[in-house]
Amino acid sequence: MYEAQFQDFEVTGDPSVGVPRVALLREWLAKHDLDGFIVPRSDEHQGEYVAPCSERLRWLTGFSGSAGVAIVLRDRAVIFVDGRYTLQVRHQADMNLFKVESLVENPPAQWLAENVGKGARIAFDPWLHTIAEAAAMRRSTARAGAELLPLEQNPIDAIWKDRPRPPLGAVTLQPNELAGELARDKLARLAEAVAKQGADYAVLTDPSSIAWAFNIRGADVPHTPLALGFAVIAAKGPHLLFIDERKLGIEAEAYLTQLADLRAPDSLEGEIAKLAKAGSRISLDPVLAADRLRMIVEGNGGKVVEAADPARLPRATKKEAELAGSRAAHRRDGAAVVRFLCWLDAQQPGTIDEITAVTRLEEARHRVGEETQRALKDVSFETISGSGPNGAIIHYRVSRASNRQLGKDELFLLDSGAQYQDGTTDITRTIAIGTPSDEMRERFTLVLQGLMAISRLRFPPGTRGSDLDAFARYALWQHGFDYAHGTGHGVGSYLAVHEGPQRLAKTGTEKLLTGMILSNEPGYYKEGHYGIRCENLIVVDAPSKIENGDIEMHSFETLTLAPFDRRLVRADLLSTGELSWLNAYHARVLAEIGPMVDGETLKWLEAATAPIG
Amino acid sequence: MYEAQFQDFEVTGDPSVGVPRVALLREWLAKHDLDGFIVPRSDEHQGEYVAPCSERLRWLTGFSGSAGVAIVLRDRAVIFVDGRYTLQVRHQADMNLFKVESLVENPPAQWLAENVGKGARIAFDPWLHTIAEAAAMRRSTARAGAELLPLEQNPIDAIWKDRPRPPLGAVTLQPNELAGELARDKLARLAEAVAKQGADYAVLTDPSSIAWAFNIRGADVPHTPLALGFAVIAAKGPHLLFIDERKLGIEAEAYLTQLADLRAPDSLEGEIAKLAKAGSRISLDPVLAADRLRMIVEGNGGKVVEAADPARLPRATKKEAELAGSRAAHRRDGAAVVRFLCWLDAQQPGTIDEITAVTRLEEARHRVGEETQRALKDVSFETISGSGPNGAIIHYRVSRASNRQLGKDELFLLDSGAQYQDGTTDITRTIAIGTPSDEMRERFTLVLQGLMAISRLRFPPGTRGSDLDAFARYALWQHGFDYAHGTGHGVGSYLAVHEGPQRLAKTGTEKLLTGMILSNEPGYYKEGHYGIRCENLIVVDAPSKIENGDIEMHSFETLTLAPFDRRLVRADLLSTGELSWLNAYHARVLAEIGPMVDGETLKWLEAATAPIG
Repeated sequence: MYEAQFQDFEVTGDPSVGVPRVALLREWLAKHDLDGFIVPRSDEHQGEYVAPCSERLRWLTGFSGSAGVAIVLRDRAVIFVDGRYTLQVRHQADMNLFKVESLVENPPAQWLAENVGKGARIAFDPWLHTIAEAAAMRRSTARAGAELLPLEQNPIDAIWKDRPRPPLGAVTLQPNELAGELARDKLARLAEAVAKQGADYAVLTDPSSIAWAFNIRGADVPHTPLALGFAVIAAKGPHLLFIDERKLGIEAEAYLTQLADLRAPDSLEGEIAKLAKAGSRISLDPVLAADRLRMIVEGNGGKVVEAADPARLPRATKKEAELAGSRAAHRRDGAAVVRFLCWLDAQQPGTIDEITAVTRLEEARHRVGEETQRALKDVSFETISGSGPNGAIIHYRVSRASNRQLGKDELFLLDSGAQYQDGTTDITRTIAIGTPSDEMRERFTLVLQGLMAISRLRFPPGTRGSDLDAFARYALWQHGFDYAHGTGHGVGSYLAVHEGPQRLAKTGTEKLLTGMILSNEPGYYKEGHYGIRCENLIVVDAPSKIENGDIEMHSFETLTLAPFDRRLVRADLLSTGELSWLNAYHARVLAEIGPMVDGETLKWLEAATAPIG
Repeated sequence: MYEAQFQDFEVTGDPSVGVPRVALLREWLAKHDLDGFIVPRSDEHQGEYVAPCSERLRWLTGFSGSAGVAIVLRDRAVIFVDGRYTLQVRHQADMNLFKVESLVENPPAQWLAENVGKGARIAFDPWLHTIAEAAAMRRSTARAGAELLPLEQNPIDAIWKDRPRPPLGAVTLQPNELAGELARDKLARLAEAVAKQGADYAVLTDPSSIAWAFNIRGADVPHTPLALGFAVIAAKGPHLLFIDERKLGIEAEAYLTQLADLRAPDSLEGEIAKLAKAGSRISLDPVLAADRLRMIVEGNGGKVVEAADPARLPRATKKEAELAGSRAAHRRDGAAVVRFLCWLDAQQPGTIDEITAVTRLEEARHRVGEETQRALKDVSFETISGSGPNGAIIHYRVSRASNRQLGKDELFLLDSGAQYQDGTTDITRTIAIGTPSDEMRERFTLVLQGLMAISRLRFPPGTRGSDLDAFARYALWQHGFDYAHGTGHGVGSYLAVHEGPQRLAKTGTEKLLTGMILSNEPGYYKEGHYGIRCENLIVVDAPSKIENGDIEMHSFETLTLAPFDRRLVRADLLSTGELSWLNAYHARVLAEIGPMVDGETLKWLEAATAPIG
C-alpha cells in the first residue's frame, strides 16, 4: 500500500503555543527596552516555502499559512493574513491572544502608523523584510512618531529552544540538455545585465535565480528544489556563491568552483561590506532583497542600485530545451492523472475520501515515474483535494480532521502538481461524483469557457497578463459570476510552481514574452456547496504570422494533457469555435496519452476524450 | 451657403518662424546667463486646448499639435512629439533647426539627463509644468550634474512682441436642471473631501473642475467651454475664485459671489502665500497643478498635501440630470448626423471633398440646433475628415493643402463631435464611397465587432478600463491586426471631450464607476490606403442583478445614435449575439431618430437601419 511521501495530513497549528511563547517574546523585548517586534512568515530569501528553522511565525502563533505577519506589542498582538487564510487562522492561532487583520486591506505598515504610540520602539529583523517593505514600515512608524529599529539578532531565535538547524539538502546538477544553456553562458549574460544596470555587482537573493543561473537544484525547502544561498554576480571578475559546502558532493563542488568563488554563508555580510568599502555600486532588487543587505552596503560606503533581479526575465523565458522537458514531463504527468481518473471513476460514490484521493494520485505519479525512469521528485505543492463544500475553499488543505468522503452527486475539485527533473506541473480537474446538477454543469461550462478563451487567444507582442485576465472571466461575468483570485501564475522549470514575474491577473503588469509558462485556471466557488476550477499550464509561443494579417501574434501552447469531465460540459452553451477547440484538445490528449496507458485505462480514456456535440 | 464657424482649414505651422525666434530666445538666455529653456505646449491649467496667448510652442517653432515640448540649448534645439505628430512636425517646424524626439520613448526629463552638460543652467517656467514633471526634470538634470532653474518671467513672453492678451470669454451659468446638483452642494462635498485629504485648502487648477464645481461655463479656449481661472476650496470657511471680472455679467457675478470670494487672477500668488504663511496644509494634484504653486506654498511655510483633484471623480460620475441631458443631446446630434449621411449618400463619388463634408456636417448640426432651440455651441474638437489614405492618419486634420475628393470605391472616416448646453458628443462613422472591397468589409466588420464586444459586456464593480480594453481588440487580434491607440477616453458634460480620469486603455487604471461616460472607438488603419474607426459614446450603468447570478454587474448604455454603414458589414462573420445587438441598435436608432427626420431622410434612415442577416 503506497503512502504519500511528499505530503501529510496532520492537523497543523496549535493555538495553545501562543500564550507561553508570546510571553517569552515580551519578556525579551522588555529586557531590551523595546515596545514591539514584527514576525513575518518569510525567510532571508522571500520564497513561498521556507525551511523548518524559518517557521518563526508558526512557532510563535500556531498559524501555518504560506503568508502572514504577526506584530507583538507590549499589550497587544495582531496577526495579518490574506483572504485565503481568514478561516484557517481562527483555528490555528489563539483568538484571545491575536487580533486578526487583513494583510491586503490594512497591511502591517499601515497598521503601525495607526496603532503604535509616539516614541514607541518597534523592532524588526532586517533579514526578513525586503527593502521596499522596510521603507514602508519606516515611513509609517515615523508618521506615528515612533522608531523602527533593525535588530542584529532575531529574538525568536533567542527564545526558540529546539529551533531546527538550517537545512543541508544535497545539491544536484541540472543536466545541460534540460537546462538548455550552460551556466557559464548564463552568468556571462547576467554580468552584462549588471553592467547595464550601472552596477558593479548584483546580489542574487532568490534561490530560484541561483538555481537557474548555476544550473543546480537543491532540497532545502518542501516542494521546490532550491538550494538556499546567495550569489554575487560581478559585472567584471569572479562571481561569489555563498552556500554551505556540506550540501555539495565532490562533483557539485568541482563544477561550481569553475563558475564562482565559493564562500561560506556566514561570510556574506563581511564580503558585501568589503565590496561596499571599495565604493562599489551594488544592485539589489527592492522587492526581493533583504533590507539588511541595503544596510550593509550603505553602512560601508557603497551605493545601492535599486534594480530588478537580473535573472528574473531570462529565467522566466524558457529555452527550447526547457520547453521540450516540460512537454515530456506533462505527457508522463498526464498519463498518471489519467490512470488516477480512470481508477476514481470506477469507485462507488461515498467509498473514497479526500486523503485517499491525494494518496492514489501521488501513487500514480510515483509509478509512472518509476516506469519511465523519470522519478517523481516531489509534489509541486500540497494537493488541494476538495469534495463538496470543501471544494469552495480556494486554498483548501485536507487534514485528518477535515477529511470527508467524495459523496454522491457532488463535485470534486483536485488541484495538484509534480516536480520532475525535466519539468514542474500544475493541473486542476473538477470531477463529477455521481450525477451533477444542471446548475453544476452550467457553472462548470462557464469556467471551461474561460479557460478556452485564454487558450485560443492570439495577441500582439507587448501584451501584459493584466490585459488578458478578463477574457477568462467573460463567460462568468455575463452570467453574474466571478472568482476572487488571479487567472494564472508563472511556473518554473523544475523550480517553483509559483514563479514570477509574469502573471495572468489584474496585477500582471509584466509583458508576456515568448517561452513564459503560465497557469490558466479560472474557477467558480459556491460557498458551502461546491467549487469548480479548470487548470492547464500554457506557454507563450513565439509571435507568428496570421494569413493576411499585419502583425505577428503570440499564441499559447497548452502543456497539460488530461481530459475535462465530459459529464460536466453543456455542449449547447458552447460556440462552434469552443466546441472544436475542446474536441481537438481531447483528441490530442488521446493521441499523446493513449500510447502510455492500456487495458481499462485506455478504454476509459477513449470514452473520456470522445468528441462532444 | 453655410460656412464652418467653429473650425477652419488653414495650413497652420510655418517652419520659417523658428530661426529668428530661436535666435531671439538664445539672446535672452545668454543675457541671463542661462544655457537652455524648456517650452511646453501647456498653459497654467494643463488642458488640451489653450488660449492663443499660451501658444508659445507654436510661436517659437511653428508646430501646432496639441502636445509637445521644445528644449532650446545654446547650440542645439529639440522638439518632442508623440506618435500622432511625427509626420506633422516635419512639415510645421524647421528640421534644420530642431531635432525631433519621442515624447514617449525619450521624454524631456530623460533627454535632459543624457544631453545637458555638467554645470549647465537650464531654465523652465514653473507655471507651465506640473509638480510631477518638474520633479522628474529636477532629478534628471541633477543626474547630469546640471541645474534646473525656475524663472519668474517666461522669456517667450518677453520676446513675443504681438503676443495676444489673455482671453475674456463671457461666463455663463449652467442651469441647475442640466447640472443636476447645486454648486452650493458640490462645494460642500468638495470641502469635505479636502478635509478628508488632511488639508485645509485645495487649489483647483483644472478649469473643468472649476466649471463643474461652480456650474459655470466659459469661452476662453477653442472647443471646450472653459472659463480659465483658479479656485481655492476651503475645508472650513469661504472659498476663493480667481477669475477676471470682465468675464462676468451682472448675473454671473451676483451668482458667484454667493459661492465664493471673487479675486483677481493676479492676486493668486499673494493669496496662496498668505494661506501658506498661516501654516496651512494645501492640497495640490501633483499631475495637474503647476510646480509654481508648490513653490509658493513651500516657500512661505505652508505644507503641500499631494492628492488628486477632489473634483475629478465627482465630475466624472455624471448625475442623472447630466445623463438625461446627454441622451437628449445625442438624439439631436444623431438626427444631424443622419441628415448629413443621407445627403452624402446622394452625392456622386468624386464630387465632394473633405472640407465640404466637414462644413455640411457642421451645418447639419447647426440647423438641428436652430430647429430644436438647443444651439450648436461649438464642435467638441476639429473634425477628422479623412478620405482614402487620409483616413489612415489617426489624428488627421484637413487643410486646404491636404484636402482631397471622396473618391469612388474608397472609405471615408469621419470623426466629429459637438458641444450643446446639455451635452458633449463624439462620434465616428466610416462610410463606403462607391463599392467597398472585400478586404475593407472584412476589416470594418472586425472593428465593429470590437465596438460591439465592449457594448455588450457585463462586468463587476471594481473593474478598471485597462481590464476591458483588449475586448475591443480581440476580433482584430485573431486576424493579425491591432490599432495604436486606446479604445476610449472619458467625456465631459458640456465640458472637455477628453476628460479624465477614466479611460478604456492599457493605461486606464481608474475603476469604472456608475455614470462615467466613455468613448468606445476601436479602429484599423492601413497606411497609405484607408482608415476605419467605429465610435459610440457609452455610459457605465449602475450594477444590476443578472437572473441566477451571484454578483450585480455593470453594463454600458449606448448614447450615440446613428447607423453603421450596412454596406461594410459582413454578416457572415458575426455571431448570433453580435447580429442581434447590431439589429437592435439599428432598430433603436430608427425609433429614436426617425421621428426627428422626414421625407428622403426618413426613407434613407429606414433603409440604413433595416435588419441585417
